[in-house]
Amino acid sequence: MALYVHKYGGTSVGSTERIKHVADNIINVREKGHDVVVVVSAMRGETNRLVALAREIQEPPNPRELDVLLSTGEQVTIALLCMALEQKGYAACSYTGAQVRILTDDAFTKARILDIDTDRIKDTLSAGKVIVVAGFQGITENGDITTLGRGGSDTTAVALAAALKADECLIYTDVDGVYTTDPRIEPRARRLNRITFEEMLEMASLGSKVLQIRSVEFAGKYNVSLRVLSSFTEGEGTLISYEEAGMEKALISGIAFNRDEAKLTVLGVPDRPGIAHKILGPIADANIEVDMIVQNIAPDAKTDFTFTVHRNDYKKAMDILQRTCTEMGAREISGDDKIVKISLVGVGMRSHAGIASKMFESLAGEGINIRMISTSEIKISVVVDERYLELAVRTLHEVFKLDQDVQSKESN
Amino acid sequence: MALYVHKYGGTSVGSTERIKHVADNIINVREKGHDVVVVVSAMRGETNRLVALAREIQEPPNPRELDVLLSTGEQVTIALLCMALEQKGYAACSYTGAQVRILTDDAFTKARILDIDTDRIKDTLSAGKVIVVAGFQGITENGDITTLGRGGSDTTAVALAAALKADECLIYTDVDGVYTTDPRIEPRARRLNRITFEEMLEMASLGSKVLQIRSVEFAGKYNVSLRVLSSFTEGEGTLISYEEAGMEKALISGIAFNRDEAKLTVLGVPDRPGIAHKILGPIADANIEVDMIVQNIAPDAKTDFTFTVHRNDYKKAMDILQRTCTEMGAREISGDDKIVKISLVGVGMRSHAGIASKMFESLAGEGINIRMISTSEIKISVVVDERYLELAVRTLHEVFKLDQDVQSKESN
Repeated sequence: MALYVHKYGGTSVGSTERIKHVADNIINVREKGHDVVVVVSAMRGETNRLVALAREIQEPPNPRELDVLLSTGEQVTIALLCMALEQKGYAACSYTGAQVRILTDDAFTKARILDIDTDRIKDTLSAGKVIVVAGFQGITENGDITTLGRGGSDTTAVALAAALKADECLIYTDVDGVYTTDPRIEPRARRLNRITFEEMLEMASLGSKVLQIRSVEFAGKYNVSLRVLSSFTEGEGTLISYEEAGMEKALISGIAFNRDEAKLTVLGVPDRPGIAHKILGPIADANIEVDMIVQNIAPDAKTDFTFTVHRNDYKKAMDILQRTCTEMGAREISGDDKIVKISLVGVGMRSHAGIASKMFESLAGEGINIRMISTSEIKISVVVDERYLELAVRTLHEVFKLDQDVQSKESN
Repeated sequence: MALYVHKYGGTSVGSTERIKHVADNIINVREKGHDVVVVVSAMRGETNRLVALAREIQEPPNPRELDVLLSTGEQVTIALLCMALEQKGYAACSYTGAQVRILTDDAFTKARILDIDTDRIKDTLSAGKVIVVAGFQGITENGDITTLGRGGSDTTAVALAAALKADECLIYTDVDGVYTTDPRIEPRARRLNRITFEEMLEMASLGSKVLQIRSVEFAGKYNVSLRVLSSFTEGEGTLISYEEAGMEKALISGIAFNRDEAKLTVLGVPDRPGIAHKILGPIADANIEVDMIVQNIAPDAKTDFTFTVHRNDYKKAMDILQRTCTEMGAREISGDDKIVKISLVGVGMRSHAGIASKMFESLAGEGINIRMISTSEIKISVVVDERYLELAVRTLHEVFKLDQDVQSKESN
């Protein structure tokens, strides 16, 4: 008999019909003799509806009160799912974040989990009940309601799985797993059976929004086996875990990309210590997140400095740059908000040389000009013109044979 | 500096615009230097929406989970009202029933308040904040969420006013007070400036649904001055309190009526001890509430027995009666579901004789046949044919000069 934590996202519980379907899924697992703790999100659209109400009244809404408001979304779902289980003859019991007691810090709207009290849950499991916990929410030492930020239900599920030492944490969503790349761009994209935490982190942060990134970090930290699968179709999904000895290794696991980038370049800055801080300090002060940063030596003890930001922040960042660069005596600034970032991700890179050059060569072969490069141990990212996105992704998918699984690649 | 408890019902907080208006009303009181604790209901329509969701899944819904579900309605309102106050520059803090801690028994969907912890509220008031509490809800010793039943927000407000020893509990609603009778029937109906708890109880239970009856009992028990007034228009409303020495007394305060009655009569029952129980026992077992009961001696050691029920229960009650009366050897049974109950209410009756006969005389004068009579210390109820309702109410309103206030009546 195993203990599973299931998490169902907003689309999976988006209607009373869907909630009944989720109940059936849970009952299947119960019928095999397993214990189940379920974490649910708000019904699809509910959180947006509540945020809109808040904004009609206060902009920005008071963070403490916003959390009181938003936490009702999940509370509705836990009650309805328990009713669906009870209706089908299975004992169930709902708990809000406060009732479990999921203790968090008091950073309203983006709180972090500090501790989970498992006593009440263990008692209720012993009584033979399915437990349904409201995701996304917790409570402070003081008794104030907090939320963990958008997608926080994934984190609740992983944290509960860790605290309860569950056998697996299954994240049910509207996609049936993690793919080698976006199937809307490359129809031959293939579902991965397994992926490591590190790879998943790179894939998630690079725009494959299957799982909240913090939940993957959490799962990695506490070694919680995480499975992403669909609540709409049958299938094994994708297991996210640590790399195991003897695990078949693909060189490249996937290709992530991000359309929302814009790049800004300062040309001919006098190359003195601290220029990175002088350029990026005011950007950070304006709450603009910087993604890639590249600095090149230019002639005459000058330097060229380039960084990327979210496309929505492009104009604001450019205005700030105009001011600071006049002060610094830079020659000129330029920018481009019609760029995208494409990244190859794979733990196999660690042990294989030549991947970067193969990537650059194949892009060049298609006439795609690379505007920026940035690398990490398991990732190579390039920035290219927006219009090349689809061509670049398909070319790399083909070149690195991502449509074939590891077995067939090795037999090549 | 006084402490007021305000309660705003579902219509008063039915939209974000209405919530902003409520914030202005609270700010007016704050600006006069008073402390305010606010109790709110769910936004109009929200509770019905949630009940409908539950019923799509389970019928009847699991009571514990129904309370988890319904309590979200008020939680939404407390957050939005605090945002409205903060937006206008006034510090505010919301509390759910669990957070206050409003301790109740575990009778889910109709829990009773056992205790209210006032420490947290007092601390927050000392910090100069307006407190907004979710009505209608509490928490058990065990940490389970409960609700107090429909209209329970009034009870929350009165209980808080009692626990905090507030100077007055103001119930803001969509009517501007308690009237001598329904103005839709008698356009000359007049708003009462004052009414006693006992009169209000008779008025409420007889169909003037301004306040939840339990909240009036509670207010009477703990001597909380209660004021009913409109959140839409200016005005003093109606103060509900104990009778005070020197208070101007009207003979009759108002005329209540109830359209939803039906009457059943058992004729010629052998008059043996326990017949009332034999007739009404099976009715009670079927969860049918009985209102008026009248028993008359008939010739030949037989008796006639009449009672009234809600019109919706008429057919069911008649079926039950058919069965029991055959067993009892009653001569026949008859019934009528086209009747109404009309009641004169007033503490003045205690000290004035002749009110009943004046009532019967004036109804007879209009050719209205009285089918049943029932009296209490401060109330006389008659049952008449449905078609006489308007005529009877207007006649009594005229005869007892309810369109004139006490002063002008005395000077007559």
